[in-house]
Amino acid sequence: MASEVAKEWAQGTFKLNPNDEDIHTANERRLKELIGETAGKLHTGRSRNDQVVTDLRLWMRQTCSKLCALLWELIRTMVDRAEAERDILFPGYTHLQRAQPIRWSHWILSHAVALTRDSERLLEVQKRINVLPLGSGAIAGNPLGVDRELLRAELNFGAITLNSMDATSERDFVAEFLFWASLCMTHLSRMSEDLILYGTKEFSFVQLSDAYSTGSSLMPQKKNPDSLELIRSKAGRVFGRCAGLLMTLKGLPSTYNKDLQEDKEAVFEVSDTMSAVLQVATGVISTLQIHRENMAQALSPDMLATDLAYYLVRKGMPFRQAHEASGKAVFMAETKGVALNQLSLQELQTISPLFSGDVSHVWDYGHSVEQYAALGGTARASIDWQIGQVRALLRAQQA
Amino acid sequence: MASEVAKEWAQGTFKLNPNDEDIHTANERRLKELIGETAGKLHTGRSRNDQVVTDLRLWMRQTCSKLCALLWELIRTMVDRAEAERDILFPGYTHLQRAQPIRWSHWILSHAVALTRDSERLLEVQKRINVLPLGSGAIAGNPLGVDRELLRAELNFGAITLNSMDATSERDFVAEFLFWASLCMTHLSRMSEDLILYGTKEFSFVQLSDAYSTGSSLMPQKKNPDSLELIRSKAGRVFGRCAGLLMTLKGLPSTYNKDLQEDKEAVFEVSDTMSAVLQVATGVISTLQIHRENMAQALSPDMLATDLAYYLVRKGMPFRQAHEASGKAVFMAETKGVALNQLSLQELQTISPLFSGDVSHVWDYGHSVEQYAALGGTARASIDWQIGQVRALLRAQQA
Amino acid sequence: MASEVAKEWAQGTFKLNPNDEDIHTANERRLKELIGETAGKLHTGRSRNDQVVTDLRLWMRQTCSKLCALLWELIRTMVDRAEAERDILFPGYTHLQRAQPIRWSHWILSHAVALTRDSERLLEVQKRINVLPLGSGAIAGNPLGVDRELLRAELNFGAITLNSMDATSERDFVAEFLFWASLCMTHLSRMSEDLILYGTKEFSFVQLSDAYSTGSSLMPQKKNPDSLELIRSKAGRVFGRCAGLLMTLKGLPSTYNKDLQEDKEAVFEVSDTMSAVLQVATGVISTLQIHRENMAQALSPDMLATDLAYYLVRKGMPFRQAHEASGKAVFMAETKGVALNQLSLQELQTISPLFSGDVSHVWDYGHSVEQYAALGGTARASIDWQIGQVRALLRAQQA
Amino acid sequence: MASEVAKEWAQGTFKLNPNDEDIHTANERRLKELIGETAGKLHTGRSRNDQVVTDLRLWMRQTCSKLCALLWELIRTMVDRAEAERDILFPGYTHLQRAQPIRWSHWILSHAVALTRDSERLLEVQKRINVLPLGSGAIAGNPLGVDRELLRAELNFGAITLNSMDATSERDFVAEFLFWASLCMTHLSRMSEDLILYGTKEFSFVQLSDAYSTGSSLMPQKKNPDSLELIRSKAGRVFGRCAGLLMTLKGLPSTYNKDLQEDKEAVFEVSDTMSAVLQVATGVISTLQIHRENMAQALSPDMLATDLAYYLVRKGMPFRQAHEASGKAVFMAETKGVALNQLSLQELQTISPLFSGDVSHVWDYGHSVEQYAALGGTARASIDWQIGQVRALLRAQQA
Repeated sequence: MASEVAKEWAQGTFKLNPNDEDIHTANERRLKELIGETAGKLHTGRSRNDQVVTDLRLWMRQTCSKLCALLWELIRTMVDRAEAERDILFPGYTHLQRAQPIRWSHWILSHAVALTRDSERLLEVQKRINVLPLGSGAIAGNPLGVDRELLRAELNFGAITLNSMDATSERDFVAEFLFWASLCMTHLSRMSEDLILYGTKEFSFVQLSDAYSTGSSLMPQKKNPDSLELIRSKAGRVFGRCAGLLMTLKGLPSTYNKDLQEDKEAVFEVSDTMSAVLQVATGVISTLQIHRENMAQALSPDMLATDLAYYLVRKGMPFRQAHEASGKAVFMAETKGVALNQLSLQELQTISPLFSGDVSHVWDYGHSVEQYAALGGTARASIDWQIGQVRALLRAQQA
Repeated sequence: MASEVAKEWAQGTFKLNPNDEDIHTANERRLKELIGETAGKLHTGRSRNDQVVTDLRLWMRQTCSKLCALLWELIRTMVDRAEAERDILFPGYTHLQRAQPIRWSHWILSHAVALTRDSERLLEVQKRINVLPLGSGAIAGNPLGVDRELLRAELNFGAITLNSMDATSERDFVAEFLFWASLCMTHLSRMSEDLILYGTKEFSFVQLSDAYSTGSSLMPQKKNPDSLELIRSKAGRVFGRCAGLLMTLKGLPSTYNKDLQEDKEAVFEVSDTMSAVLQVATGVISTLQIHRENMAQALSPDMLATDLAYYLVRKGMPFRQAHEASGKAVFMAETKGVALNQLSLQELQTISPLFSGDVSHVWDYGHSVEQYAALGGTARASIDWQIGQVRALLRAQQA
Repeated sequence: MASEVAKEWAQGTFKLNPNDEDIHTANERRLKELIGETAGKLHTGRSRNDQVVTDLRLWMRQTCSKLCALLWELIRTMVDRAEAERDILFPGYTHLQRAQPIRWSHWILSHAVALTRDSERLLEVQKRINVLPLGSGAIAGNPLGVDRELLRAELNFGAITLNSMDATSERDFVAEFLFWASLCMTHLSRMSEDLILYGTKEFSFVQLSDAYSTGSSLMPQKKNPDSLELIRSKAGRVFGRCAGLLMTLKGLPSTYNKDLQEDKEAVFEVSDTMSAVLQVATGVISTLQIHRENMAQALSPDMLATDLAYYLVRKGMPFRQAHEASGKAVFMAETKGVALNQLSLQELQTISPLFSGDVSHVWDYGHSVEQYAALGGTARASIDWQIGQVRALLRAQQA
Repeated sequence: MASEVAKEWAQGTFKLNPNDEDIHTANERRLKELIGETAGKLHTGRSRNDQVVTDLRLWMRQTCSKLCALLWELIRTMVDRAEAERDILFPGYTHLQRAQPIRWSHWILSHAVALTRDSERLLEVQKRINVLPLGSGAIAGNPLGVDRELLRAELNFGAITLNSMDATSERDFVAEFLFWASLCMTHLSRMSEDLILYGTKEFSFVQLSDAYSTGSSLMPQKKNPDSLELIRSKAGRVFGRCAGLLMTLKGLPSTYNKDLQEDKEAVFEVSDTMSAVLQVATGVISTLQIHRENMAQALSPDMLATDLAYYLVRKGMPFRQAHEASGKAVFMAETKGVALNQLSLQELQTISPLFSGDVSHVWDYGHSVEQYAALGGTARASIDWQIGQVRALLRAQQA
C-alpha cells in the first residue's frame, strides 16, 4: 500500500490536505485512509529531525550526479574543441598585457583543467552527502533497536552517521556543496570574462553565436554577450548563498534549531543555477566562432624577446646574461625604429657572438610555441598530453 | 654552494640587500657572490609566476600537516574525555529547550565527530596542494625540456600540474584551505557557544579553568569565558578572509594578475589563527570542570514523555496512538498538578490497559538512555562504538 | 490613452503578448493598438538602461517607506512595553555572566535604541534612492533636450543623477539597501538570541505566546521558539544577498552590463523578508509573557559588589582602593560561607572604617538600580529619559 | 600631572610595565607614581567596556577626517583632469561593446560622481561615530551622577549614546565603516578595471606612468598595471573584513562579549588600506598618459546609427519608425559593403524622404556628442555643469 501512495505521487493524483503538517504526515494520513490504524506505525522510531536531513541528502545525492554529468559534458566539449583547433596560435596574456604566443587550445585547456578539479571536488562532496542519518531520532538516537546498517544498504548509502546529535544538526554537506558551486562559478566567471574581452571590437578573437548573445538592428556589429554576463553575475549570487548559510550556521548552538530550515532554499536555488549555467557554458563553447586571422595578426615580434634569450641559453650562456643580451637587442631595435626581428645578424652579433644564422627560427611563432614542450606547456605534444590526461581523468571519475 | 646559501638562511646570517627584488633574486645574487657568473643559470627555465606558487604550496603542505596534528590532538582529547565520563547524564537540548536525557559523552562526541570531517577535508585539500606547478614558466611552459616528473619526485609532490596557464594563476587550493578553516571554525564556534551557555549561572553544568577564563576580585563567581569568546569571534574573521579571497578571484581574467598576491597574507593569518585556536580548544576541553550534580538535577520526568510512548510501542501499540496516549498522561499529570512519574499505575491504565508494573523503569534516567542503543545513539554501547569509530578514523587518517 | 493602459493594469485586464520583450515594449505595443503609430513616440529619448533603473528606484522608494513604517511600529511597541514594565528588575549580563541588576525596560530599550539607528539609516538610503536617472539614455545622455528637472518634479524625486554613464550602471543604492537590511537583521538576531535564552527552562524569564512558538502535546513545557529562530536564520540569508551583489558589482567594468540584472531578485527577496520579520518581531514583543518572580529570584547579593565599592567612593575613598576594599568583603563573605549582604557592620568595619549603618541600602536591588541615574543608565529617571528620547526621534523621523 | 603623562606619551618616553593590563591601567599606574593614591580616582565611574569603545570612536572619528580629505583630493584630481581634457572623444562602451562616442571627461566624471557618494556616506558614518558612550559603565550606567553632556562637550562629540547596554556593545559604526570602505573599493576597482582594459595593447587608450606600473627590460612595450591590480585586489580584502565582522556580530547575544575585540584589527587594517589606495589612485590619475589619436581612431560610423534615428525623430518621425529606418540604412550599407556614412543622400532618401543634405552633420563625432546636452549627458555644456556640480558638492561637504 506504500507503493500505492508512491504511485499516486508519481501520477500526480496524491491530494494534499490542509491539515497535513508536512510531507511525512501527509503520507501517513493517506496510508491510514488506505489501511487504517496500522499506518500509525509508519513514524515509529523516526523523528522529523532525522527525516528532513535524510530527505535532503537523498535529493542532493541525485543532484550531484546530474551536475557532475553536466560538468563532464562541458569539459568534454572543451577538450574536443581543443583537439580540433590546436594549430591556431594567439597571444597569451599576463596582467592583460600580451606576453607570449600560445596555442588557442592551451587557453581552452587551462579552463577545462580547472573544471576537472571541480568535478573531483563534487565527487568528494557527494561522498559526504551519501551518509545516512536515519535512525538518529530527534537527538538521542533510536530506541527500538533499528538496524541502521540495513537501512543504509536498502537506501544505498555509503555509510551511516556516527552520532545522533551531530547527525540531525550538522549541515557541513550543504555548506560544502554551496562552496563547491561558488568555486566552480569562479572558474566559469573567469572564463566568461576572458571571452567577453576576446569578443570586444578591440580584441576581435571570438564571436558568440546569435543564440548566446543579443544583437541590435541598429548596431549589427554590436553583440552583447548576455549569456556570459549572466554566468558572471550568477557567481556572485551563488557565493551569496554560501556566505548566508555559513553565517546562519556559525551563530547556532549544537543540535537541531529551526534556523537550519534555511538550508533547502539555498540548495534548490544553487542547484538550478548550476544546472542552467553549465548547460549555457557548454552551448557557448560549442557554438563559439573564432577569428583565426585576427588571432594571428595580434602576434608581434616583441613577444619573442624571451625566446631570443632562450636561444642564447641553448648556446650555453647563463640565463641572467642571456636576459640582458636580449634586452640589448630590444633596445637596439627600438632605437633604430624597427621590429625586433628586423635586426640583421651582424647587428645581433655586436651584442653577442653566439648569434648565428639559425636565429631566424626564433622569429617563427610556430617554432616559438614548439619550444614549450615540457609537460603542461603550449607545444603541440604537450597539448596532446593534456588532452589525454583530461580524458583519462574523466574516465576515472565516471567509473 | 647552494647548500652554503641554505646554511646562511638557517643560521640567520644571510644578509638581504636593498636591491634584491625578492627572495629568488636575493638567493641568485648571493650565489653569484660565492661562485660568480654561473649563478646566472639559477633562474633558467623559471619564472616568478611559477616560483611563487610553488613556494606557497610547499609552505601550505607543511602547514596542513601541522594543523592536522593539532586537530587530531583535540579530537583525541575529546574522545578520551568522552570515554572517561560516559556515565554522566544531563539534558539534551533541541531549540535550546530541554528535550531528552543524554550522556555527557554523547555531547562531547557530537563535536568530536564533526571535527573528524574537518580532518578528512584537510587531507583532501592537502592532496590538492601537493601538486607541483614548477616548470610552468610565466604562462607558456618551460622551453628547455625540463623533466617535471623528476622535479616532482625530488620535491616530493604527489603530482604535477597539467596546464601552465592554469598552474600559474589558479588559487583553488588557497580558497579551499580558507573554506576548510571557515567550516572548522564554525564547528569550534558552535561548541564554544554550547560551553558558554553551560557555564552560565543558570545552567551551571561546566566551569572553565582559570587559565581559560577571566575572573574578577569583585565578582569571584563571575568567570568570563574569554577563551571561548575568542574562538567564537575568530570564526568570523577566518570566514572574512575566505570571502575576501573569493571576491578577488572572481573578478579576474585568466592567467597571472598581481591581484593574486593577496593570497599569502590570508593564508598566513588563517594558519596562525587555526593553530592558536586548536590549541586553546584542546586546553579548554582538557581542563574543563563539570558539575555532575547540577547536570543530574536538570533532568526531570517530563523529559521522559517520549519514552513513555515508546513503552507502549514496545507493547504493540502503533506509534501514532502511543504518542496520543502519552500525551494524555502528560495532560493528566498537569491537571492533577503532579510530576509525570507520580501518576499511579491505575491512573495510567485508565489511558491504556497496556500499562503494567514495569512502567516504573521508564522513570529511571539511566534506563532511558540505554534504550537508545541503535548505532549513533546515547546508550553506553553506542557511545563505546562511537569512540571506537572515531579512534579508528584517526588511525586511518594518520596512516 | 496612457491612462487607459494604466487602468488595464490596475484592473488586471492588460493582456501580455508573447512578443513583448519587456514591460516597456508591452505598454508601447498596447498604446499602439489604441492610438496607432503615434505610440511609437513613447520610447523617444529613453533607453532600457535608464528605464529599468528608474523603475527600480520607484519601487524601492515606496518599499523603504513601508519598511520604515513597520520598523517604527516595532520600536513603538518596544517603547510602550518598556514604559509599562519599568519597575521590573532582572540580571544584566556581560559575557553571558550575571553582572548587575538592571531594569527589564533597560534591556528592551537597548534593542529599541539599536533599531532607531536602523530607521535613521533607512531614511538616508531612501534619500539616495530618490534620485532620478531618467534622461540618461543608454550611456551618453538624452539627445532631445529633455528637461530632466521637470521629469524630477513630476515624478517627485529629490534630485537628478549627475552623469549618465554612472546613472545607468551604479547600484550603490541597492548595495546600501541590502547592507541596511543585513545590519538591521543583526540587531533583530541578537534580540532573538537573548529571548531564546531567556525562554529556556534554565533562565525562565520569558515565555513566547503560542502564536509565535511550537509546542508539543508530549512535552507541553517545551515551547520551541520557532519565530525567533526564523528571525535569527534570516539574518544569514539577507547578508548573503548583500555579499552576493557586492561580489557581482566588484567584478564589473563601468557602464551597463547585464550582470546588473541580478539586483532585482535580491531586492525583492530582502524586502519581503524584512517586511515579514519586522511584523513577526512586533508580534513577539507585544505578546511576550514575562515571569517577574523568576527575574527577581535571579538577583543575588554578589551582583552588588560593584555597588559596595561605589558606596565607599561616595564616602571619599579613591575608586581603586574602594575596589580593593569591596574585594576584601567578597573574600570575607566567601570565607565565612555567607552571602555578601550577611556580613555584619562590625565585620565590614574591619575592612574600612568608612562603612556605617547606611550600608544596608546597598543590599536593596531597587536602590542599586536607582544609583545609575546618569543619562543612559538603568535608573528610573534615565529610563524615562530614554523613552522620551526615542519617542522624540520617531517623531522627528516621521516628519 | 595628567598632562605630564600625556607629554611622556608624546615624547615617546612613557615606559610600559609588564603588569599594566592595558593602556588605561598603565596611565593610572604612572599617574600614581607621580601623584600617589589620588591617581586611584582616575577609574571612578569608568569601565573598560565604555572606555574601549570611546577610544575606538575617537580614533575612527579622526581617521574618517583623514580619509575624507584623501577622497576629496582624488575627486578634485579627477575633476581637474576632466576639465582639462573635455574635448577628447572616445568610444563609450556598454557590455564592453562599443556603443556611442562620448567625451573622455564624461568617463572620468562617471567615476568621480560615484566617489562623491562615498564621501557623502563617509560623513554620515562619521556622524554616527561621533557619539559619546563614556559614562555607560560596564552595562548599567554610571552610578556617580557624571554629567555626560559635559563630557560630550569637552571631548567635542556630537551627541551622547542613549542606552548604556547598547552603548557598550553595539558596533554598528564599525560595520558601517567597513561597508563604506567595501563600497568605495568597489568603485575604485571598477575604475581600475576600466583603466587596465584601456591600457591593453588592444585598446591602447591610456598608459600608466612608470611609477605606477612595472615594465620589463625584455618587453618594454609590456607595462604591467601593478598599481591598478593591487587596488582591484584590495577590494576583496576590505569586503572580507566587513563580512567577517558582520558574521561575528550576528552570532552574539546582547551586551559586551569579548568577541567584540575583533573590531579593532579590522578597522586598523581597512583604514591603512583605504589611505594607501586613495593615494595610489590619485597618483595614477594625475600621471596617466592618454593616447588621443588612438581614442579618435576607435570611433566609427556604425556607432552613429542611433544618432541617425534621432535625426529623423527631429524631423518629426515617431521614434519607433525612425529606429526602423535607421536599421534599414545600416542594412543597406552592410549589403553594399560600405561604411554607414558613405551612403549617398539618394540612397538614404529611398528609405525616408525626410533625409536631406543636413544628414552630413550626423557623421561628425563632435556634432554627435553635442546632441547629448540634457543634464548629465556628454555634451560640453553638460560636462561643464557636471564639473560645477561636483565642485559645489565638495565645497558643501568640506563646510
